[in-house]
Amino acid sequence: MNFLEERIVKDGLVKSGNVLKVDSFLNHQMDIALMEEIGREFKRRFSDKSVTKVLTIEASGIGIAAFVAKEFGVPLLFAKKSKSINIDGEMYVAEVESFTHKNKNQVIVSKRFLGVGERVLIIDDFLANGCALQGLISIVESAGATVEGCGIVIEKGFQIGGRVIRNMGYRVESLAIVDAMDAETGVITFREQK
Amino acid sequence: MNFLEERIVKDGLVKSGNVLKVDSFLNHQMDIALMEEIGREFKRRFSDKSVTKVLTIEASGIGIAAFVAKEFGVPLLFAKKSKSINIDGEMYVAEVESFTHKNKNQVIVSKRFLGVGERVLIIDDFLANGCALQGLISIVESAGATVEGCGIVIEKGFQIGGRVIRNMGYRVESLAIVDAMDAETGVITFREQK
Repeated sequence: MNFLEERIVKDGLVKSGNVLKVDSFLNHQMDIALMEEIGREFKRRFSDKSVTKVLTIEASGIGIAAFVAKEFGVPLLFAKKSKSINIDGEMYVAEVESFTHKNKNQVIVSKRFLGVGERVLIIDDFLANGCALQGLISIVESAGATVEGCGIVIEKGFQIGGRVIRNMGYRVESLAIVDAMDAETGVITFREQK
Repeated sequence: MNFLEERIVKDGLVKSGNVLKVDSFLNHQMDIALMEEIGREFKRRFSDKSVTKVLTIEASGIGIAAFVAKEFGVPLLFAKKSKSINIDGEMYVAEVESFTHKNKNQVIVSKRFLGVGERVLIIDDFLANGCALQGLISIVESAGATVEGCGIVIEKGFQIGGRVIRNMGYRVESLAIVDAMDAETGVITFREQK
């Protein structure tokens, strides 16, 4: 097990309905030393890429992506969720469906901060059905920029997102891939990664 | 002018309606070196305080507060905005009115992460009417924890929030206090601070 898998086993809580609670260290309360370690690990995994910008989506991705951006020495850009339909043409927009909240959001990024020639590393805390990540990818593509890769902290391997996005040809690095969780025993099964 | 005021003059945009756009370096695209400098400056200003936790509110506060928490060597806790009324008793809740979005949000923090004995430094990017900050303060007080201070990146000194919260007896440190802005000339007047 790597450092993140160990932490998930130690402090994660498995709830019914395939919910993995990691709010004591990742997405409500944040352990900053862990964020720094995550930043270094993504730098190591994408060290062959010449990244010019890190892109994430509000809210819980921001704390993680900030330390990834620090490692690469590049700006962090975070997409905003918006319900408003009144977008003024200065924004890239993607529609993202949330299964958790059962609604649709527009995800927006200002055109001033993303364009041709940018090489973008996309970072997010969770990958499940992949809607948010697909939205971010489509924004990068609309901008004429390049997706250098996607760095995910926790991937739910039993949901479809990771497979869909890898099949689209994108490189996805997940620090932990959960293949199964048992809410009764609390046992979490991680996918073996080389 | 300090480093932040200089940056606001260089890259901030004054728009009509007393809007100050700082989305190229602070709250959409983030300059990580600037975030680190902000973190060090709040550590310096609150060096007399023994802080055990940094509290902020999603979304744009997170990136800033993460580097403040790093300087203090403590966890970061971010309050979540929620429209749901179905709160299960495990949460501290405050009602916050947004003048920008003309709606009310519940701001929530899990009771597991805040309690008696915690000494909390509250961090946010903007202070204007003070509603969000008052919500965070009331959550800390409900938890029986102590507010050690409030660190704000940009305070709109011509709005009421800073005065209200200082009058309540809380220490508010703002890195830049904008006393006036002129959308036609682009001139920004900062309050002199010692």
